[in-house]
Amino acid sequence: MAGEAAVAPSSLMAGEIAEQPSAVERTLVAMASYRQEVSRLLRRARFVVFLAHGTSAHAALYGQYVLATYAGIPSFAMPVSIATDYAAEIDLQGAVAIGISQSGATEDVVDALMWARSRGAGTLAITNEAMSALAGLADVALVTMAGPEQAIPATKTFLSQLAALATVGLAALGEHRELEDGLSRLPDELARVLGSVFDLDAYSAAVAAASQVAVVGAGCAHPVALEIALKFRETAYLAVSGFAAREFVHGPTAVLGEDAALVLVGLSRGTTLLQCRALADLARSRNTPLVVIGGDGRSGGDSGEWVPAPELPEVLQPLGLVLPGQVLAERIAKNLGYDPDRPRGLVKVTDPPTVLRDVVTPD
Amino acid sequence: MAGEAAVAPSSLMAGEIAEQPSAVERTLVAMASYRQEVSRLLRRARFVVFLAHGTSAHAALYGQYVLATYAGIPSFAMPVSIATDYAAEIDLQGAVAIGISQSGATEDVVDALMWARSRGAGTLAITNEAMSALAGLADVALVTMAGPEQAIPATKTFLSQLAALATVGLAALGEHRELEDGLSRLPDELARVLGSVFDLDAYSAAVAAASQVAVVGAGCAHPVALEIALKFRETAYLAVSGFAAREFVHGPTAVLGEDAALVLVGLSRGTTLLQCRALADLARSRNTPLVVIGGDGRSGGDSGEWVPAPELPEVLQPLGLVLPGQVLAERIAKNLGYDPDRPRGLVKVTDPPTVLRDVVTPD
Repeated sequence: MAGEAAVAPSSLMAGEIAEQPSAVERTLVAMASYRQEVSRLLRRARFVVFLAHGTSAHAALYGQYVLATYAGIPSFAMPVSIATDYAAEIDLQGAVAIGISQSGATEDVVDALMWARSRGAGTLAITNEAMSALAGLADVALVTMAGPEQAIPATKTFLSQLAALATVGLAALGEHRELEDGLSRLPDELARVLGSVFDLDAYSAAVAAASQVAVVGAGCAHPVALEIALKFRETAYLAVSGFAAREFVHGPTAVLGEDAALVLVGLSRGTTLLQCRALADLARSRNTPLVVIGGDGRSGGDSGEWVPAPELPEVLQPLGLVLPGQVLAERIAKNLGYDPDRPRGLVKVTDPPTVLRDVVTPD
Repeated sequence: MAGEAAVAPSSLMAGEIAEQPSAVERTLVAMASYRQEVSRLLRRARFVVFLAHGTSAHAALYGQYVLATYAGIPSFAMPVSIATDYAAEIDLQGAVAIGISQSGATEDVVDALMWARSRGAGTLAITNEAMSALAGLADVALVTMAGPEQAIPATKTFLSQLAALATVGLAALGEHRELEDGLSRLPDELARVLGSVFDLDAYSAAVAAASQVAVVGAGCAHPVALEIALKFRETAYLAVSGFAAREFVHGPTAVLGEDAALVLVGLSRGTTLLQCRALADLARSRNTPLVVIGGDGRSGGDSGEWVPAPELPEVLQPLGLVLPGQVLAERIAKNLGYDPDRPRGLVKVTDPPTVLRDVVTPD
């Protein structure tokens, strides 16, 4: 069992952040039993289409990287509204649709996966609730083992979705020694990263004081950059944007001034490392407050505001890279006097609010 | 020729917003000559994948709605980085890739379209520059006729991309009387909408004063809600998020309080009108400052902060709905003392900044 914080956490969110190594460990054990089914489903897939909202859409984006890049399966995203508002009459024979919803009860993700099935797609659900509508309707339902999430901002359910998607990639690949080895070390490595993120006060002050915050992720760290940006916005109401590094260099780099902050999320190896180093250098040259999560020593610099990447294969690094971002979001919220567990303006809704129920589910 | 503002505009951006009816008219004339080629390319498409960044990615999202919903072609988005950073080895035989870039010089969109071709896809480019790399490499290049764009925030090039995508949908459909009729009336209808947006001071004050702004788009107005949110962020530095209505009702509705603002972008007909009305009612019940762009009289209410939808078929309404959002962004920026033409932190880069050139284009 991976280690957990010995001191009582100061918020539900902090507690759930700390639970993540265990949540991922339990999820990986559960996923092992699905491997053959998933492999059968994906082996015949012409392409994969993901259907999800919000945080689950960030997980879906990670799934695109895993399946397209590592397993060679064309993998795409589609707005749920095309399925639910328009019931588009497109041919999904031979394709696989993957619906992702923490609760498995998000009605239009459920409806979208039903639509995909009616259009001929095989269906896979990723959800934290075994008895949910989403799990019930899918050909294969991957049930993550995050346990109940009490804080409104999703943390451990998101990381468990990523872990499930990594195993989907492995199932599609058949065998992959490096990925299997990385998954076996994942819970301990996540615990190690969490243990190393203890002194973020300087980081969080710099981010909170910025008039604009950019969270930029290189390569397959792009989805967790979007998720970290969402956490900052949800819990601390920052004016923050998430970007892929490839997108950020085309224009928005000029935002980097002394009154902005850059949170750079990078991989420690691979072709994208050069992007990470160059963006870190650029921020430093403009005196932009900079937090580097991952990358390497050269991108991290000697400022101390660097959390090294987990020692994992590139495709698994995003699972460790999201952790410091979650910790930062929780810390910034508290330092600004907000309750990270109950952000103003958010409810843990999975069903639509009553006022909208008749409307968004006219059937 | 559609009418344009008689008074000299007060910013380049305002001038380019006013030019849009003409830009779209010229673009539609140019597109007519491509119709057979596009039709041939798409007739055999297993699916379509869009490759684009930023504003062009919002156009691509509109393209997904048009092609999937109206022409019945499975149409998806994929992060450019999967093509460029990872050169994913996926099979795109029989698929069509559509690359969108205003300048046609955004290097990694060019690289991504080359990658798609190497994986077997047919290729279509949408760009404002006939002599660009993107136009040069594609099987079919649709060259929009927006003319040079001087202000940094994209307006007329974006709307011209939408117009081009609407004609791609028409080419895929073969014939569609309602859409053809709508396209023929489009420039005049855009001019009419612009003419009706004259007094936005109350709107812009309410939006600028909000601690958080949500821009929410129903159905196929979802892409223009994202684009309006981007304009607000680019030109006026607001803490703003763009959402699909389907996504917004699952949690973020609770953001609607007296210190927030909601900009609701809706269609005047179709299944999504009920979502628009319900969200407008919800905002009013919580005293949330509300601007309604489109929808119908019931969603617009009697507050006066309502710009009616253009009188166009549903699939073309988004082209008119973006206009009041652009005007608002320009007005808010000026009222806050910013220069909308030269947002701090943005350069009209299409090539990467020199500091990054060696890095993002290692070849």
